[in-house]
Amino acid sequence: MNHKPKNIKLTIEYDGTRYHGWQSQAGTGARTIQETVELAINRLTGEYVKILSSGRTDAGVHAFGHVASFKTECPIPSGAWAPALNHLLPNDIRVLSSESVADDFHARYSARGKIYAYKILNRYQPTALHRDYAWHVHRRLNLRTIRLAASALIGKHDFSAFRGSGCNARSPVRIVRSVVVKRRGDIIEIWIEADAFLKYMMRNIVGTLVEVGLGRFKPQDVHQLLVTRDRTKAGRTAPPQGLYLIKVLYE
Amino acid sequence: MNHKPKNIKLTIEYDGTRYHGWQSQAGTGARTIQETVELAINRLTGEYVKILSSGRTDAGVHAFGHVASFKTECPIPSGAWAPALNHLLPNDIRVLSSESVADDFHARYSARGKIYAYKILNRYQPTALHRDYAWHVHRRLNLRTIRLAASALIGKHDFSAFRGSGCNARSPVRIVRSVVVKRRGDIIEIWIEADAFLKYMMRNIVGTLVEVGLGRFKPQDVHQLLVTRDRTKAGRTAPPQGLYLIKVLYE
Repeated sequence: MNHKPKNIKLTIEYDGTRYHGWQSQAGTGARTIQETVELAINRLTGEYVKILSSGRTDAGVHAFGHVASFKTECPIPSGAWAPALNHLLPNDIRVLSSESVADDFHARYSARGKIYAYKILNRYQPTALHRDYAWHVHRRLNLRTIRLAASALIGKHDFSAFRGSGCNARSPVRIVRSVVVKRRGDIIEIWIEADAFLKYMMRNIVGTLVEVGLGRFKPQDVHQLLVTRDRTKAGRTAPPQGLYLIKVLYE
Repeated sequence: MNHKPKNIKLTIEYDGTRYHGWQSQAGTGARTIQETVELAINRLTGEYVKILSSGRTDAGVHAFGHVASFKTECPIPSGAWAPALNHLLPNDIRVLSSESVADDFHARYSARGKIYAYKILNRYQPTALHRDYAWHVHRRLNLRTIRLAASALIGKHDFSAFRGSGCNARSPVRIVRSVVVKRRGDIIEIWIEADAFLKYMMRNIVGTLVEVGLGRFKPQDVHQLLVTRDRTKAGRTAPPQGLYLIKVLYE
């Protein structure tokens, strides 16, 4: 008997600490989130599916709402995929919800935007509890200059200066819809919503904003970087463990 | 040459996930934070010291500011103990600061109070990122009734109803100076400051307040529990991974 294949959308939270990022890397032996989820689907259904994703994440990066989709002939009710897969997944990966979506839904190409957050622990003292969940910046950051610099990012720009090498996007132009910088105690969070992100774009932006906050760059340098599009002049890439994929936006 | 022994106070942050609590348990083979710190001191100085602590913590409990002290003849400058020990400690234990204190300073008996925080993730969906750092309560908690119930705890009371079995404190009377209940998104934090805490007192209070928030207990039941001092009537013990020793107060 043939079931009509269904297109299942998963929203996934994961702690990226133990993984080499989302995407499977054939032949490297590196454990990835994608292959861990695919393996759980295989154990559940016997099918070998290839899941499509809203995008890649780097090793050590976390997600509160990564989105993936896959086609299956298995008759499991759409809402039951989440609990069934969680039963088979390691506890640092959790499917938050599962639903049936239109055949032409594509976790990446159907996305209309993404929200990332970056967490910085800004204090002199060392840390045990934040070691895998924030970037520890010892010297005091100036939030006023960071916010001033960040405002230059909003809008449609060529983000070549913040594009990682090896990025295979056709265009370096992205639309940043909002940047929010907030402090709570010694934790600083930088939230950015954009239509899409280039490779390392979020981490390169944060690395540059931190240079501003340390007084090594001037706030207006960020605007200048967008204009000159010179990656070599921007700040270093912020480390992965502070980065969280918060949400992928559809419709 | 004999140095006059110095009394060194350490303030320690740790991620309790991998440990069987603070206190060494002779012969059990269970790894504890105390023995890990003592071992680092031994590797640094060659001395076998016994460190005194502000108190015990249970397996899986975390600390942002555990306090310990020990006497040493080693001439290392007091401020240098923190970086020197951090060099030898695993990265889930960090000495935040070290200082020389009076000979009669005792991490536990000199303490004038303690602040604990308890973190609850209150949402239906499962979690990957909070699994070791909060108590996941699926059903919606009513913060209004929790706050109402919590207010009964403030002041000097006999906390027998919230005392764990095997507690060897001479008196069950403690002074709770403040209780603060706050919500940020789906995270609820309960902060309590008291002159001291009985065994499991914080976790038993939180377990009981959660029963109130779920509507199984009435807010006034907490007052009644204090009066009747009946542990069997109180809520269950909240799990350890949501508990954080925030600060030990001296002077």
